[in-house]
Amino acid sequence: MKLLRFGKPGAEKPGVLIDGKRFDLSAHFGDWDRHFFREAGLERLEALLNSSPNLPELPADIRWGSCIARPGKVLCIGLNYSDHAKESGMDIPQEPILFQKGANTVVGPYDDILIPRGSTKTDWEVELGIVIGKDARYLSSPADAAAYIAGYCISHDVSERAFQLERGGQWTKGKSCDNFNPLGPWLVTKDEIQNVQDLLMELSVNGVKMQNGTTSTMIFDCAYLIYYLSQFMTLEAGDLINTGTPPGVGMGMRPARFLNAGDTIELSIQGLGHQKQICVPA
Amino acid sequence: MKLLRFGKPGAEKPGVLIDGKRFDLSAHFGDWDRHFFREAGLERLEALLNSSPNLPELPADIRWGSCIARPGKVLCIGLNYSDHAKESGMDIPQEPILFQKGANTVVGPYDDILIPRGSTKTDWEVELGIVIGKDARYLSSPADAAAYIAGYCISHDVSERAFQLERGGQWTKGKSCDNFNPLGPWLVTKDEIQNVQDLLMELSVNGVKMQNGTTSTMIFDCAYLIYYLSQFMTLEAGDLINTGTPPGVGMGMRPARFLNAGDTIELSIQGLGHQKQICVPA
Repeated sequence: MKLLRFGKPGAEKPGVLIDGKRFDLSAHFGDWDRHFFREAGLERLEALLNSSPNLPELPADIRWGSCIARPGKVLCIGLNYSDHAKESGMDIPQEPILFQKGANTVVGPYDDILIPRGSTKTDWEVELGIVIGKDARYLSSPADAAAYIAGYCISHDVSERAFQLERGGQWTKGKSCDNFNPLGPWLVTKDEIQNVQDLLMELSVNGVKMQNGTTSTMIFDCAYLIYYLSQFMTLEAGDLINTGTPPGVGMGMRPARFLNAGDTIELSIQGLGHQKQICVPA
Repeated sequence: MKLLRFGKPGAEKPGVLIDGKRFDLSAHFGDWDRHFFREAGLERLEALLNSSPNLPELPADIRWGSCIARPGKVLCIGLNYSDHAKESGMDIPQEPILFQKGANTVVGPYDDILIPRGSTKTDWEVELGIVIGKDARYLSSPADAAAYIAGYCISHDVSERAFQLERGGQWTKGKSCDNFNPLGPWLVTKDEIQNVQDLLMELSVNGVKMQNGTTSTMIFDCAYLIYYLSQFMTLEAGDLINTGTPPGVGMGMRPARFLNAGDTIELSIQGLGHQKQICVPA
């Protein structure tokens, strides 16, 4: 299944994609949120769709929201592709590096990227997002992780490098700016992804390809990340995990290249669709 | 006004404290959450209380929840008391240090502290919490901050120092463990606090006083923090800001002293009430 949300910011409703068309599910479900995932919502959704319901089709021009409701947590893994660690001038981590973004960063896949005032180093990062399907705590091994995954989506981990790296040590200031996490266009349930560690990823700026990678080069794979994070905290249904970015970010270029108002960014991950954003001043 | 919440974890209801007694407000309001603060809820609550309503009194033994609903963001300021920076062996920051905790950490003021498995360095931090009353972005000066504050509360920023400082550089792993942010017992609206920068703070472990400070020694005061943070992101109604801790944390002692199962912690801040937690294994 492919879950999506539509409508005005802050008032999105749930929908699904079937054969390339969007359908309104708001008569059947409140939202694709923590409550939905926790209360076996995916099973109820599947049963509904199998019953051949008569669903209203959405007009093509209605806004795409983020594919899930605001997560309780947005957990992010840093430097999880060996080549990206190298281009960032950092050592390959011995264990996953963890930081958080505010849930306020999560917006639709075609919403504008807001360049913060005073920004000189706004940068892109295409990432595979994992959405948690049920609460996970103290898993005994990575082999147990699959049962806790709802599905996958494209997650754009926008970053302001000066705020992140030159303003006091912790990364939050450059990671939690408004609109810094376009998410979607849809959440693909895990049954539709044959091998999540073998998906091509691309990102271009103004039509020029900048990132061109594959999830096969992650240092710590999705199953390990869920196992690992569950040792520190409960991963809750509806939480989002950003799994790191492949090489090709602006900070890694010589000379470095950052985003300006007017730039257009396009992202895609194999099987997970496509995003497009325009940069505008905050 | 003193706002509180009561009932089972995850199903708390809103209440208020009047003359030392707790009253149930759930017939009038859904929760003390983002929606409530954003929609001028405090003004509506004040009008209701001024109308001398007949409110049900709560039984004394009902559980205290966190004083506000799960915040959209928990923003935390590091090393914001000069003496605490010194005891941590760190330089006094030139500008506020910012990190985040997961909203999953926020629990009631008398709930257990869960010592994570494998923890050797679970530590305490009494902090003044600021609750945001309306969305704040790009304030022009600290003088504008007061209008965006709903009130203040005790916030216990529990930390696992080995997870925080010895596991990859970012602090999240040692800050976002389950139950690591007891909050309350009540939110005191700002009109009831004469000078928020002149409040005594205390924390004891098993009856021995460990922290004994005052908000007058903050490096960056509450108004400056709100102004400063609003330059990076929207502070949303219902968000929580933990403003840092005075000297006396376990990590700063010689030898260091950390929490074990069975330890009892008590916290207080002048005018904001009292917390008490018992440490148990996760």
